[in-house]
Amino acid sequence: PESKLPSLGTTIFTQMSALAQQHNAINLSQGFPDFDGPHYLQQRLAHHVANGANQYAPMTGAQPLREAIADKTAERYGYKPDANSDVTVTAGATEALYAAITALVRTGDEVICFDPSYDSYAPAIALSGGVVKRVALQPPHFRPDWQAFAALLSEKTRLVILNTPHNPSATVWQNADFAALWQAIAEREIYVLSDEVYEHICFTDAGHASVLAHPQLRERAIAVSSFGKTFHMTGWKVGYCVAPAAISAELRKVHQYLTFAVNTPAQLAIADMLRHEPEHYRELPDFYRARRDLFIDALRGSRLEILPCEGTYFLLADYSAISDLGDVEFCQWLTKEAGVAAIPLSVFCADPFPHTLIRLCFAKQEATLLAAAKRLAAL
Amino acid sequence: PESKLPSLGTTIFTQMSALAQQHNAINLSQGFPDFDGPHYLQQRLAHHVANGANQYAPMTGAQPLREAIADKTAERYGYKPDANSDVTVTAGATEALYAAITALVRTGDEVICFDPSYDSYAPAIALSGGVVKRVALQPPHFRPDWQAFAALLSEKTRLVILNTPHNPSATVWQNADFAALWQAIAEREIYVLSDEVYEHICFTDAGHASVLAHPQLRERAIAVSSFGKTFHMTGWKVGYCVAPAAISAELRKVHQYLTFAVNTPAQLAIADMLRHEPEHYRELPDFYRARRDLFIDALRGSRLEILPCEGTYFLLADYSAISDLGDVEFCQWLTKEAGVAAIPLSVFCADPFPHTLIRLCFAKQEATLLAAAKRLAAL
Ligand SMILES: CSCCC(=O)C(=O)O
Ligand SMILES: CSCCC(=O)C(=O)O
Repeated sequence: PESKLPSLGTTIFTQMSALAQQHNAINLSQGFPDFDGPHYLQQRLAHHVANGANQYAPMTGAQPLREAIADKTAERYGYKPDANSDVTVTAGATEALYAAITALVRTGDEVICFDPSYDSYAPAIALSGGVVKRVALQPPHFRPDWQAFAALLSEKTRLVILNTPHNPSATVWQNADFAALWQAIAEREIYVLSDEVYEHICFTDAGHASVLAHPQLRERAIAVSSFGKTFHMTGWKVGYCVAPAAISAELRKVHQYLTFAVNTPAQLAIADMLRHEPEHYRELPDFYRARRDLFIDALRGSRLEILPCEGTYFLLADYSAISDLGDVEFCQWLTKEAGVAAIPLSVFCADPFPHTLIRLCFAKQEATLLAAAKRLAAL
Repeated sequence: PESKLPSLGTTIFTQMSALAQQHNAINLSQGFPDFDGPHYLQQRLAHHVANGANQYAPMTGAQPLREAIADKTAERYGYKPDANSDVTVTAGATEALYAAITALVRTGDEVICFDPSYDSYAPAIALSGGVVKRVALQPPHFRPDWQAFAALLSEKTRLVILNTPHNPSATVWQNADFAALWQAIAEREIYVLSDEVYEHICFTDAGHASVLAHPQLRERAIAVSSFGKTFHMTGWKVGYCVAPAAISAELRKVHQYLTFAVNTPAQLAIADMLRHEPEHYRELPDFYRARRDLFIDALRGSRLEILPCEGTYFLLADYSAISDLGDVEFCQWLTKEAGVAAIPLSVFCADPFPHTLIRLCFAKQEATLLAAAKRLAAL
């Protein structure tokens, strides 16, 4: 029988990681560390497994984890969500995003996204019958154009999806951006989905601005985060979202039939980690800033032009001095011929404008970054 | 803003487990063991975590697990799926069911379900814009009526969802049922979603009949299973599905945006378990038969009438000699007043016919079952 989803392909992350493996390239494409997470976290997992915490967690998340999340949120953003009604643990941030979109977007609803955007938003919106409207962000600063944004608003606008620190551009929103967003939508009934999975990897002096720190916006917002990113454990697949009780209730209606609940011992281990080693996430900006700077330094000998990197563990590089291939072809060539895998920016763009940018992941050991920089400098 | 999903409530499992906890009742409602899974499995998890297997697994599942699943399938059903193209690991069977339904069902498509059915099918179908058509199964044997089934087929029928061993009725399909299904749909382009999460908990002499053992049906079928049930680890949230490459490709398009991938160390530990302790699942029917028989024996002193139990770790009991409350009210009363939580059958039924049946979970320690039976016998 015919496909329901003829236009959906395989995610770029699966494609590029497979290509990297096939050609034995250094994999700076899919975002994951090539070093391990905290020992304490691992020990706590083993503890909870041996201790019999192996049956279903509550659908909304293990109580100690929801409470630890509420406390961390209060510490970071001056706002304490209710651990029972406002916090939901999900199978990674991907599930949180999918559940939020599915719970809110109805057939014909319009959703405003920024372009480039993370690749899972648009398919989730399409599966709910929604229509994506895009505000183009322009390199090198990828700042929202609020006039262009306002022009997209309509009676059908149901949801805005933002992402800060922003994957793939590595830029971050400031409080002024949230103020501008509020001004634009205050008079309308529009939800906000704020993808903040890199909330603890922000290098600006002001630090990460969360939608949860904005008293009005957070009344209609779902903020999404990811422990995979925060604790260097992308394979554990534990994320969460924070939203007011009424919105959380809608999201949970979907979550309970998507996955029902999340790995119990991993949830309890992460709760312990948040309580007992909070310095891990507090020191994360320094940890990644050092890697970013080392990598940028090492790339000075190359003909890549590095764009500003304010957050995430990615940076964008312009390769136009090296090649006039399109970015998809360049990334394939780079993997096969130069032994470094990267992600072409255009896969995050709905209207691929002619650019020459690739995304490199620097969540890697120093030796990996130096080896990759050496290969890139030889081009 | 108004709800997209006004008619969706909270799953009965969350409701009843919460009520059980509140009243300190013995919880025979939500299906999960009150004993622990294999030590070897736990040790392997700790091993893989300590060994650095903490980053994203491949989107389709960890290679060793997909290969072990292919081999187990060959051993059980005489058919070996391709580990690369036909096997997909999911965040529990719930995600497999949701992804399969979402990948196949389009707006206006009809989906045939049997009634009673597991509670997640209908919401997933509705979210894809599908329409559920139901074939009523009648107690005490809950056998499909193939004439009623044939009468529901139409040009719009896209999918049939079956479940064997069947939750909540504890009946199982025989090869003849699959033959009848094939006869009914052979000439039409209809997919089959076969929920076989209790495949290793079947008490009949013939054993579990899988859709995967049927050469024609499996060409259009997705078979779903659950390691939570098989290894007594419902909290680990690892399930999988097997389907021909073309159908798997459709399902993976959705899976990659629902959850992307599944907990890596749990996948590798389960692969080890399948390879090194296959006697665990081979002996599972005996393990649960003993619990079933013990529980039924202990209930002989009660006024409950126990229905035939051929598989799953549930059984149905008729309470009409005890009370003339409706089943939902009876389960609430039972939890609060008798200290035993059960699931009312009607929550699995679209057209709640007037019955007096409750579902009891016997995946419990002997002491738990005996204590529950004592309370039930006192009614
Ligand atoms: C879910 S795999 C992709 C990881 C990631 O977020 C990225 O590389 O952008
Ligand atoms: C996903 S929680 C419900 C467990 C279960 O399958 C059942 O009790 O029927």
